[in-house]
Amino acid sequence: MPTRLTQYRLCPRSRSIRLALAEYGIEVALLDENPWEWRKGFLAKNPAGEMPVLEYDNGLTLCGAYSISEFIADEPLPNATVMAQRPPPLFPGNREDRAEVRRLIDWYHGKFDREVTRELLNEKIYQTMRPSGSSAPDPSILRAVRANLRYHLAYTGYLADARRWLAGDDLSFADFAAAAHISTVDYLGEMPWHEYPAVKAWYQKIKSRPSFRALLADRVPGSSPPLAYSDLDF
Amino acid sequence: MPTRLTQYRLCPRSRSIRLALAEYGIEVALLDENPWEWRKGFLAKNPAGEMPVLEYDNGLTLCGAYSISEFIADEPLPNATVMAQRPPPLFPGNREDRAEVRRLIDWYHGKFDREVTRELLNEKIYQTMRPSGSSAPDPSILRAVRANLRYHLAYTGYLADARRWLAGDDLSFADFAAAAHISTVDYLGEMPWHEYPAVKAWYQKIKSRPSFRALLADRVPGSSPPLAYSDLDF
Repeated sequence: MPTRLTQYRLCPRSRSIRLALAEYGIEVALLDENPWEWRKGFLAKNPAGEMPVLEYDNGLTLCGAYSISEFIADEPLPNATVMAQRPPPLFPGNREDRAEVRRLIDWYHGKFDREVTRELLNEKIYQTMRPSGSSAPDPSILRAVRANLRYHLAYTGYLADARRWLAGDDLSFADFAAAAHISTVDYLGEMPWHEYPAVKAWYQKIKSRPSFRALLADRVPGSSPPLAYSDLDF
Repeated sequence: MPTRLTQYRLCPRSRSIRLALAEYGIEVALLDENPWEWRKGFLAKNPAGEMPVLEYDNGLTLCGAYSISEFIADEPLPNATVMAQRPPPLFPGNREDRAEVRRLIDWYHGKFDREVTRELLNEKIYQTMRPSGSSAPDPSILRAVRANLRYHLAYTGYLADARRWLAGDDLSFADFAAAAHISTVDYLGEMPWHEYPAVKAWYQKIKSRPSFRALLADRVPGSSPPLAYSDLDF
């Protein structure tokens, strides 16, 4: 069984794995790690210096959202699990459906991360926490990130409008990946919800799931979320 | 059957998929696309604007190395395939072995790409091809990228020294992903081979595979590889 997840509370990859674990009813202890510190003890666990890292009681250590999500999806369910209690598969459907799920995971954990979340976290949190860092975000970077965000939200809205869930009829890890990034952007006060009603309606569905509760209770030093962040009726 | 792969000849994600397809004996027509152009026709195929894109004769379109590699690995082999002719599995071994393969794919297609290949391609090729671009790479960016590259080659050498292939005893898609990035860095004349003998020995093994031949014959406008690039005895 997995026992510990090393993570940073606003890291979207960590958040997506926490959602997957919670959906599967897998309880783990959370170890907080500050990504801007590059601690030696953490690099010994994952030389890539990336989060999350999931540790098992048999000594197995899994690094990164890609490796962990595919591993969890591959996990045989306990015999006692009755059909009605089965968690939603992270990669539902047939081979072609799963290819669509993975395309979108790549979209959010790859492109969205590079063009929005990573930059926002760096400008608004990481660089203010570093001893040598400046305290104010660079307005030209924020402007570029906000333009990128609108492009991503328009695409997310297009998907949410056309489908029940982002990758198709069924909830999948693509929804958790997308919701993880959007929840971090929301925490940082950057979500223009009123401009994207389809994104809001989709996010309301996923935000109401019990697996989401722990994320909404998270706070990090140096930043407070807007009031509506943890409100299910935002 | 897949019929067409849209790619850019030096794009490492495209290269990794070309290696996988060649290992599986799947022949596809290659369509060249210039990533710096953001052509509308290409964005209609993949709104993420990323390569490669694999198209099937039944109309199915797969976008991105993650989605494509997992889809190919999931493909049932033709009945006629005898054991001796079976291609090497892209994700060999048990669940834990596969998690290690995926950790390393993430390393090369994620971290190595962000810290080395993407920057090198941008400085040495893309910006020289854009009408408005400058022609000379920024020396401070090149210096940072070269320092990053040494860190990545030290880690790759550590893996190559400790294991038969990068993820373990068996050749895997992690080797193809790593070799794809390193082959692009090599094309751009940036590989300090003599400093990393274990990386060189591993790369010689993979470079000698028939699947690698097409990559070694590639040339792009605006840049020629060093003489040893296509030499198997470099």
